[in-house]
Amino acid sequence: MKETILNHRTIRKYKDDPIEKSLLSAILTAASRASTTGNMQVYSIIVTTNKAIKEKLWEAHFRQNMVLQAPVILTFCADFNRFNKWCRQRKAEPGYDNFLSFFTAAIDALLAAQNAALAAEEQGLGICYLGTTTYNADMIIDILDLPSDVIPVTTLVVGYPDESPGLTDRLPMEGIVHQEKYRDYEPADIDRIYAEKDNSELTQKLLQENNLETLAQIFTQKRYTKKDNEFFSQKLLEGIRKQGFGM
Amino acid sequence: MKETILNHRTIRKYKDDPIEKSLLSAILTAASRASTTGNMQVYSIIVTTNKAIKEKLWEAHFRQNMVLQAPVILTFCADFNRFNKWCRQRKAEPGYDNFLSFFTAAIDALLAAQNAALAAEEQGLGICYLGTTTYNADMIIDILDLPSDVIPVTTLVVGYPDESPGLTDRLPMEGIVHQEKYRDYEPADIDRIYAEKDNSELTQKLLQENNLETLAQIFTQKRYTKKDNEFFSQKLLEGIRKQGFGM
Repeated sequence: MKETILNHRTIRKYKDDPIEKSLLSAILTAASRASTTGNMQVYSIIVTTNKAIKEKLWEAHFRQNMVLQAPVILTFCADFNRFNKWCRQRKAEPGYDNFLSFFTAAIDALLAAQNAALAAEEQGLGICYLGTTTYNADMIIDILDLPSDVIPVTTLVVGYPDESPGLTDRLPMEGIVHQEKYRDYEPADIDRIYAEKDNSELTQKLLQENNLETLAQIFTQKRYTKKDNEFFSQKLLEGIRKQGFGM
Repeated sequence: MKETILNHRTIRKYKDDPIEKSLLSAILTAASRASTTGNMQVYSIIVTTNKAIKEKLWEAHFRQNMVLQAPVILTFCADFNRFNKWCRQRKAEPGYDNFLSFFTAAIDALLAAQNAALAAEEQGLGICYLGTTTYNADMIIDILDLPSDVIPVTTLVVGYPDESPGLTDRLPMEGIVHQEKYRDYEPADIDRIYAEKDNSELTQKLLQENNLETLAQIFTQKRYTKKDNEFFSQKLLEGIRKQGFGM
């Protein structure tokens, strides 16, 4: 386990070998053992292998080719639909049409996803999380026929790796851990915490390619711009409301 | 790993033995290796062991005694504060004051939390997730001095177990997994999926204790009521806005 966790790499190139049924089943069982709020299990996992559906998901996920390459796409959804139906069939009136319930269900889905990711990696499979899930949740809702009270929150691409990338850099632990209470960052702290990232060879290469002065500018001007964030933010909020979680 | 995942139990009684520094450090390192959006690592972990601060957290977490018993409380926060400060010190104007950015940061925090949970369990420690984190995020923000752009999304209580509970029931896998697309549930599906849970000895005991007719009513009338959900939902939304993530 420890080794699996410490050796995690995001894989972006996959062989087209299928995943054995029993292996996929073990991954899904691992997902199901994660903690869930009140043991309500208010999430669902959609397993997509069909080429035509994957092509539609590929569109939703900004045409990232690994969605087509990898044999299995797992879409993890916050899901109060099943629980609400159960309540109504059991003379109970559910009160889960609110933001807190959406967020509770999203937590369930995300903890299950990380169990699935680690179970897959331990068996020699590679994974990649697709952040585009929340960008185009509305499209994914249509593609996967998600009913009211169900929203996709993350996606795992799973398959046999066709690349062996090195370990990704991380901030020093003092950068993300606080003792007892939050200790806010002074300018010198920020300089120290980000020094390695700011000065890495990879960063120098990116700055040249993008003709920009700092790595932070690559994030704010290229990768995650204010304009895009605000556009996709509104779309996600509308999706959450439309699926039945009032705000 | 597989064994650790499959043997997960939520632990609600703890010995007061402290956690060795090197072990805690290994758990936090495991957390830091989880996938994060664009490798931005937009989360923080607050490690609380101080008795006085734990007593305040205990109030926020509905006075659940394990918050006092367990030696370590890990509060996982969605955190754009550090990243925004870095951007501003690097001639970049961050555009992360929106709901999508909050949710992105929450995903980072939750995947890291599940890595920490599994790393702790593999070393013989017990854990419990505290869903009360989102109920009283505003109180936790005050207690832990969380600045703007930082919101707690989940909490792990960690310590040596002082109980050995059995494995918790889960819905059959067909209840949470969908092949290719979502297949909505017919009444007969709900009956079949929930049969074991509806008819368990634990459920019969709870129904007698609560003088109610169905397990679903225990959820809707006792554990997670519409009134509570709506109250805490509004409070969470206000907290998210107040911390700087506009909606």
